[in-house]
Amino acid sequence: MSALEREMLEIGRRARAAASALRLASSEARTTALKAMAGRLRGRADAIAEVNARDVAAALGKGLTEAYIDRLRLDADRVRAVADGVETIAKQPDPIGAVSAEWVRPNGLRIQRVRTPIGVIGMIFESRPNVAADAGALALRAGNTIILRGGSESAETTAAIVAELRAALPTSGLPEDAIQHVPTQDRDAVGMMLAGLRGSIDVIVPRGGKSLVARVQNEARVPVFAHLEGICHTYVHAAADPAKAAAIVLNAKMRRVSVCGATETLLMDRAIAPTLLPRIAQQLRDAGCELRGDDAACSITAMEAATDTDWSTEYLAPILSVHVIDGIGDAIAHIARYGSQHTESIITEDQGAAAQFLREVDSAIVLHNASTQFADGGEFGFGGEIGIATGRLHARGPVGAEQLTTFKYVIHGNGQIRP
Amino acid sequence: MSALEREMLEIGRRARAAASALRLASSEARTTALKAMAGRLRGRADAIAEVNARDVAAALGKGLTEAYIDRLRLDADRVRAVADGVETIAKQPDPIGAVSAEWVRPNGLRIQRVRTPIGVIGMIFESRPNVAADAGALALRAGNTIILRGGSESAETTAAIVAELRAALPTSGLPEDAIQHVPTQDRDAVGMMLAGLRGSIDVIVPRGGKSLVARVQNEARVPVFAHLEGICHTYVHAAADPAKAAAIVLNAKMRRVSVCGATETLLMDRAIAPTLLPRIAQQLRDAGCELRGDDAACSITAMEAATDTDWSTEYLAPILSVHVIDGIGDAIAHIARYGSQHTESIITEDQGAAAQFLREVDSAIVLHNASTQFADGGEFGFGGEIGIATGRLHARGPVGAEQLTTFKYVIHGNGQIRP
Repeated sequence: MSALEREMLEIGRRARAAASALRLASSEARTTALKAMAGRLRGRADAIAEVNARDVAAALGKGLTEAYIDRLRLDADRVRAVADGVETIAKQPDPIGAVSAEWVRPNGLRIQRVRTPIGVIGMIFESRPNVAADAGALALRAGNTIILRGGSESAETTAAIVAELRAALPTSGLPEDAIQHVPTQDRDAVGMMLAGLRGSIDVIVPRGGKSLVARVQNEARVPVFAHLEGICHTYVHAAADPAKAAAIVLNAKMRRVSVCGATETLLMDRAIAPTLLPRIAQQLRDAGCELRGDDAACSITAMEAATDTDWSTEYLAPILSVHVIDGIGDAIAHIARYGSQHTESIITEDQGAAAQFLREVDSAIVLHNASTQFADGGEFGFGGEIGIATGRLHARGPVGAEQLTTFKYVIHGNGQIRP
Repeated sequence: MSALEREMLEIGRRARAAASALRLASSEARTTALKAMAGRLRGRADAIAEVNARDVAAALGKGLTEAYIDRLRLDADRVRAVADGVETIAKQPDPIGAVSAEWVRPNGLRIQRVRTPIGVIGMIFESRPNVAADAGALALRAGNTIILRGGSESAETTAAIVAELRAALPTSGLPEDAIQHVPTQDRDAVGMMLAGLRGSIDVIVPRGGKSLVARVQNEARVPVFAHLEGICHTYVHAAADPAKAAAIVLNAKMRRVSVCGATETLLMDRAIAPTLLPRIAQQLRDAGCELRGDDAACSITAMEAATDTDWSTEYLAPILSVHVIDGIGDAIAHIARYGSQHTESIITEDQGAAAQFLREVDSAIVLHNASTQFADGGEFGFGGEIGIATGRLHARGPVGAEQLTTFKYVIHGNGQIRP
């Protein structure tokens, strides 16, 4: 066994042992620890920002992109915002112990389905060091331990954040090992996590670029909560309110172009396109967005011609593909063919059309008359998210504390035997 | 590509296409189809029993065990019982479309979590051909399609049952391909299913012996709902009612020894053992059960000495290991060490002890004053079960129609954009 393997298995063993303790910890102890984490992060905001400045300087020296540096950067204000996020999670209702269903059988057995922690979460992330705090807090809210493995460029910042999170745990009697940090940047450590550290990891959550997520999805031997990409659609139906449509499309594409809930393709009914598309296109161009349209869109207002690959491209950039279609059936078929089952929105005043879209589109999140950028755990009221899942099992959409739980059946009898 | 691979991928393709149709089928259409299935099975009970008699004759020729033959055997009465089971599932509430949570955000967005089908289930089973009907019906109740792969000894019976299930589907406008049968006995077909048939299988459910389940758990690249074994415990606490304890232990072990919810180990508090263990041991011996005890148990009443492997053995036979312990802490620790997180029961009149046991034992099912043999979807009121899961994600305990669903978030807005 290599030294790395020994080190990683020891991290897993400690995480599993801490999970056994955490499973039985009171709600109050976990809440108190979360508040202490927020307090420590806030109190050490300047020091963490200083550490981060060194990470940023090193990254600049390596010539990384401005977008990458921005994800990496954590000034004192941002650290305080991270602390506020942890505080918000501390105030969320505790999912653990909640009875999600209860019924009595004819023989008198009373059956309860009770929420319990999953156990150990393996979190693999890249450039954003704040993920360590968000994920650590959500895991603890749901009674889980977590093994955090961040990217090399943010290594020092992540270590500084994790140190504060861990230091907050013993103050309410919880084990420091409830939050584990993988200090090594050896890529083999990720492979070992994906193999589950001999049963010490129950679920893996990757956060980062498409190549990281693809590697995790391909190699993991334990369940994964993830989305590979967010090719999100906004469909402007013939019966759309033009002002709502214009405002929502602009927001859905341009509020932040780098988030997975950003709209990448605009579908618009042919009946409304000649009057509405020029207005929306002008707004988008004014905001700095490039448009790529099919023949019909190009003939209505000047834009680049889209190629077939545009429909399956997640730009994460100020670019929007535009497809003019013949009604809701086309919209649903296009989304089924090219979408990533992430988030899609219909803009219409026709309640029947909205109901059909919401029912027939098979995505984690479907919206009516709202921006796709609401695909976010905070916007759902979860207090944060550990990620967004497009898989079909256990968690789907934004993954908050409730989705980081499992359940058990608790059965109350008075002597029943089975006939 | 081999001919087998082509055939299997075509089965997957058809199952996935049928899933798209089934996802949008009405509750009424699925209920009608389920009733038609029950009717066809009932009407063809004699014919199916004849086919089964040939499977049984062939199996007898191969010298298979009596227990194996019993699982394989399906006389006309048993076929009618299978039909009744399908009828029961038809009457279960439809999980699809149910709103499992709903809330309104401060910005006016109304968010609903709505149950939807998972998609395609891959079912791999061994000797019991009735599994085809139970699993097919539960899958359809939850709007899923299913690919059924039965064992070689029951191949003809399974084919006859599947033919009736499929024939019932078009009568309510549903695609026959919603229920697919893998006709080949080539073991490579199982390997292809475990690889997911290129994304055509969302979850695998194995039903059969430990070696089958172990293979599935080790090789599957898609999620699995399963239990490897059921090493279930009944803990007779010092404050147990002796009559309840005696009746429950006898039932938990001996009602049927071959089910996964059968108790394999009896834990008994030292304080009550001298008076209660002789009575319970006598009852068990009278019923034909062999006892294997630790030193304390052997000194109280004559029995075989247990070895350390007994505590981690799922006998599935009229054998019970007996361990005399010093209170609830020992019971919980023993179960954590040797149990399989399946089903455990405490027998006590002490409500505090019961609450502690129910909370601290980390199994899919925990009971108070009831037999572990209630670990069964029918006994839970699910109308049946596709299996019992001891994993921690998505499904746990008996897997009924509700656990064969996923969900999506449906968001109703009136023009909201994200700040």
